[in-house]
Amino acid sequence: MASTRPPLGMARLSARYRIETPLDPDLAAAAMAGEQSSGTFLKVAGETDALHERHAARVESVTRLDTAAAPSLPGALPGESYTRAEVTLSWPLENIGPSLPNLLATVLGNLTELRELSGIRLTDVALPREFIEACPGPQFSVPGTRRLAGVERGPLIGTIIKPSVGLTPEQTADLVAQLVEAGIDFIKDDELIADPPYSPLAERVPAVMRVIEAHAQRTGRKPMYAFNITGDLDEMRRRHDLVRDHGGTCVMASVNWIGLASLAALRRHSQLPIHGHRNGWGLFYRHPQIGIDYRAYQSLLRLAGADHLHVNGLGSKFAEADASVIDSARACLTPLLDAPGRDDRAMPVFSSAQTIHQAPATYAALQSTDLIYTCGGGIMGHPDGVAAGCRSLRAAWEATASGVTLEEHARQEPDLAVALRAFRSPFSG
Amino acid sequence: MASTRPPLGMARLSARYRIETPLDPDLAAAAMAGEQSSGTFLKVAGETDALHERHAARVESVTRLDTAAAPSLPGALPGESYTRAEVTLSWPLENIGPSLPNLLATVLGNLTELRELSGIRLTDVALPREFIEACPGPQFSVPGTRRLAGVERGPLIGTIIKPSVGLTPEQTADLVAQLVEAGIDFIKDDELIADPPYSPLAERVPAVMRVIEAHAQRTGRKPMYAFNITGDLDEMRRRHDLVRDHGGTCVMASVNWIGLASLAALRRHSQLPIHGHRNGWGLFYRHPQIGIDYRAYQSLLRLAGADHLHVNGLGSKFAEADASVIDSARACLTPLLDAPGRDDRAMPVFSSAQTIHQAPATYAALQSTDLIYTCGGGIMGHPDGVAAGCRSLRAAWEATASGVTLEEHARQEPDLAVALRAFRSPFSG
Repeated sequence: MASTRPPLGMARLSARYRIETPLDPDLAAAAMAGEQSSGTFLKVAGETDALHERHAARVESVTRLDTAAAPSLPGALPGESYTRAEVTLSWPLENIGPSLPNLLATVLGNLTELRELSGIRLTDVALPREFIEACPGPQFSVPGTRRLAGVERGPLIGTIIKPSVGLTPEQTADLVAQLVEAGIDFIKDDELIADPPYSPLAERVPAVMRVIEAHAQRTGRKPMYAFNITGDLDEMRRRHDLVRDHGGTCVMASVNWIGLASLAALRRHSQLPIHGHRNGWGLFYRHPQIGIDYRAYQSLLRLAGADHLHVNGLGSKFAEADASVIDSARACLTPLLDAPGRDDRAMPVFSSAQTIHQAPATYAALQSTDLIYTCGGGIMGHPDGVAAGCRSLRAAWEATASGVTLEEHARQEPDLAVALRAFRSPFSG
Repeated sequence: MASTRPPLGMARLSARYRIETPLDPDLAAAAMAGEQSSGTFLKVAGETDALHERHAARVESVTRLDTAAAPSLPGALPGESYTRAEVTLSWPLENIGPSLPNLLATVLGNLTELRELSGIRLTDVALPREFIEACPGPQFSVPGTRRLAGVERGPLIGTIIKPSVGLTPEQTADLVAQLVEAGIDFIKDDELIADPPYSPLAERVPAVMRVIEAHAQRTGRKPMYAFNITGDLDEMRRRHDLVRDHGGTCVMASVNWIGLASLAALRRHSQLPIHGHRNGWGLFYRHPQIGIDYRAYQSLLRLAGADHLHVNGLGSKFAEADASVIDSARACLTPLLDAPGRDDRAMPVFSSAQTIHQAPATYAALQSTDLIYTCGGGIMGHPDGVAAGCRSLRAAWEATASGVTLEEHARQEPDLAVALRAFRSPFSG
């Protein structure tokens, strides 16, 4: 049976930007399209009209927004004012083929350096089915993670090993013993520890997994531990195998520093969920007129194979606005491709100063408990101990998901009642 | 003989930042050090004073600079004013071991998200000898590149295949035939073409190398062609082998999209110089209060193994200031480690609207011709053709390096005289 799909040469990919320009936005958009396809400052031999027609980037739309009196970024051409606009460009998929690093070279490339732009932010990327299907995508996603962690519903209640640096493998294992005993679902290494001399993975993995396996034997449930295997691809593959061979159920990597290409190659090797840590992400989002929206970037990280992706948290200690956190989490939970049997969502990972108090607002915004909710002080700082901390968080999410206020549910959940008194809400001003 | 070097646990690495903060800069620096080592919002079990003493990041210096009335980045804590300062932090190497991606997680990590900072830019990184020696570093550097390209002195005169997209392997090979015939030293793929369906490397490499090998047979000199092999590590290794097996002498990768870890792993596999293309770099430098100075980043790219690194060019079409271009090129030519037989410089690659006119200013600032000088229109646009374009550029650099003005040298170099009339100087206002 012949395929009814258009051939590769027909499919197009598109990218959306928020730009600021001293020029007419239509001219700026044309400059962007030229730079990212067949543009050069001199027409050269071989550039026929037919070739241009087939391969040139196309300006799909330009929508003018507001105007600024001064440029947001230095180095732009001088202008009387700086117009902001939403621009959508498209390219034939044939220009790159289904390659994630080359997609970035095409949709970003030199655009961030153009003097025609005093602001340039990639806000979304739309890819044809051929591209999406050629990428590995999340292997475990939500259902695989739930199955491995033994958590059928509600968020995975998690924590991060602290202090971030300095604990020996034995000290780490002792802490893990307390945490699993207390009923935690998920534990992760900090992004500051991978395979350092004072705690090599070759020792940390067996020490931690001994504790977790013993707990699983005893209780029938194996909490998930995300070991930070960040390194070059060969190192990551070896470390993944080490984790797998000791019964571990998750590996973590600093996705911005290993790069999309390494993430995709790790995913093709991996038999475990990949926990994507986005440290360094502030470089890309912190200034509104330069960078990448997480909405765009998370889709590429998922195509490369991330099963879990960090999104900060509401009322966190970080600079990101709550609305941005929610937009990111919603994006992670939006399918890239609807197809039977396919689940390409990533579980959003909430962290940074999270306690029972953020549960209601988080749920109200997401209408989902398909997430990992990590707390440090919000668990460890419970006056009645770590187990009470875990129970209070689970109670908070149960209440929330069934439409009951924390205060009301606290009447029958003493750990939640204590937590409500112990932790200050970040929303109470 | 016992080593006189201190053990790994004694060595420290340091990073320098330009920050902006609503707080006292000393407090902001302390927050940075805490976040990037043992900081958490609650002191937890296991964090002893001895552990803290051994692993904590240390504030080495804080130098106050000017003050801004408004924050440069949104999301920071409110303040009456925003103080800029230079901050140096250090960490024990033991915290991470000699791993480039984990170095980035430590020196950048969550710093870019801290509410204590309304500006954060990494400006330099200083690494101990143990770290540098554990990294692969450039394999060919300047002397290896000169040897392979057959260019003893002066810059490598180069160009980029244009149009960037759409040429078939045969069309590309035809263009290469003209260029090598004209006497070019160096040709590169555009960053927009890697291994697309319309020009797969499996066809482009043999087609191009057939032309180059024939030229080498005839003339005894083999121009260097940098094939863009950007992809995941497995793809890059296969593509590298393809290039090598066809007699190619250089591979190119988009370093920001493959990531440092993949670059280092490619370097360990490679038998050819690695041409590092930094497209996307604007994301990191375009706003002065967020990002990374190339001075810092290029050192990491060299440690990972880049032999050539792009730096834009003077009077280019891009937003980068000329002073920044020169600082970047100088950094690429500054040894990371002085040791007998070691040459860890990267050849800076100048590009974007370069002609004969930028040679004098480039040389005056660098006092070196250890560079790759790529021109598009500056070669192809020569009224007497591509060969005259190449000769005019070589003449311009010969004049420059021997302290003669272009105008003076043009009296005995007719191609240079024509070029001087044909191309407008970007410095003439």
